[in-house]
Amino acid sequence: MPQQKNAVVLLSGGLDSATVLAIAERDGFAVNALSFSYGQRHSSEVEAAKRIAAAAGVARHEVARIDLRAFGGSALTDDIAVPKMRNLHSGADEIPVTYVPARNTIFLAYALGFAEVTGSRDVYIGVNALDYSGYPDCRPEYIRAFEAMANLATRAAVEGARLSIRAPLLDLTKAQIIALGTALGVDYSMTTSCYDPSAAGEGCGECDACQLRLKGFAEAGLDDPIRYARASR
Amino acid sequence: MPQQKNAVVLLSGGLDSATVLAIAERDGFAVNALSFSYGQRHSSEVEAAKRIAAAAGVARHEVARIDLRAFGGSALTDDIAVPKMRNLHSGADEIPVTYVPARNTIFLAYALGFAEVTGSRDVYIGVNALDYSGYPDCRPEYIRAFEAMANLATRAAVEGARLSIRAPLLDLTKAQIIALGTALGVDYSMTTSCYDPSAAGEGCGECDACQLRLKGFAEAGLDDPIRYARASR
Repeated sequence: MPQQKNAVVLLSGGLDSATVLAIAERDGFAVNALSFSYGQRHSSEVEAAKRIAAAAGVARHEVARIDLRAFGGSALTDDIAVPKMRNLHSGADEIPVTYVPARNTIFLAYALGFAEVTGSRDVYIGVNALDYSGYPDCRPEYIRAFEAMANLATRAAVEGARLSIRAPLLDLTKAQIIALGTALGVDYSMTTSCYDPSAAGEGCGECDACQLRLKGFAEAGLDDPIRYARASR
Repeated sequence: MPQQKNAVVLLSGGLDSATVLAIAERDGFAVNALSFSYGQRHSSEVEAAKRIAAAAGVARHEVARIDLRAFGGSALTDDIAVPKMRNLHSGADEIPVTYVPARNTIFLAYALGFAEVTGSRDVYIGVNALDYSGYPDCRPEYIRAFEAMANLATRAAVEGARLSIRAPLLDLTKAQIIALGTALGVDYSMTTSCYDPSAAGEGCGECDACQLRLKGFAEAGLDDPIRYARASR
């Protein structure tokens, strides 16, 4: 049996990245998962990432501590209230306040380093252009530009090993993501999505992320296996 | 008097970035300096950055703690010996072992976030293609590709504010950098360059960085004001 090729998977602990991890394994890669412990107010994300990585039997899982609070600028890292957004699909020119400056660029930059160290030519990221159209760094043209830069940045690139940034969820709806992940055996009870979870780790059911998630499960005709602080919405 | 525009300057504490900071101030910008505390074995770099920023009277100086040791891969962050390189100008296809995977990409990614938070449209970085031809992420084509990506990545870019990555040292020799910085009043006694300094902060005089620095001062016809562990070389 030929040795598996390595890939890096950015694993946040959310529904999307858990699905991406299953896709990378389906594609035949040995997964090197990379998570981040940053100024997020909910460490439950990192705990979820560890559960998901262990259950998937990844080759390696690293949690990099990074410091996004050094320059603030987002409701996800500062101590300001996360708004309860009912209007999910904002226009393309309206950017949610939960946007973290340059977050995906920082995450992909680390993934690039991790790819070089693990000998990976493929980096998977769970960005989605349909449900997060308000985030500039979730658009396909951004992903392609990062890939072009990455292919000039590293020792591996200089030595001729082309790097691919794979964003397999880019054009899928949340319902399609959930249906695909379910078919691949993803256990969504391990994932967390809420921007503002309770101390017990329950979703608030009201923030943008909870609303998108619940809508996705409903449209996929499936039950969301996680708990919410409010049973009725 | 019109208000100064903000710029971000990546400040390592070395000779090059101290010169770049002086160039940014000459260009009329209010400087937001950004340094990194990472797995480097010498915290003297961060101390030097603080001295330089204070002496220059920057608008703001942040030190972001980042975790490059999570995936290792370089003599600058691992506990392996730094080689004493006598052969300074390696060929373009020979990459020094002191290369940190994706380091400039990670640093520029943070700078991108800091630029957004500080309202800066200009990011200064002290990369140099002549003396560091072995590092892929010090080449002009890399800088241009990062800039193209950055202009698709952020809220500011979406709103039409074009971001420039400025690398004013790109085509200068070390001697030209030192002559320019001296003309701009840079106090090089505050800077540190050595990959493997003594406990007292003296340069080893033998590593690649010390050799480049000494050669630059010699060619500029100036005395290097820092101390070296070995007085004669």
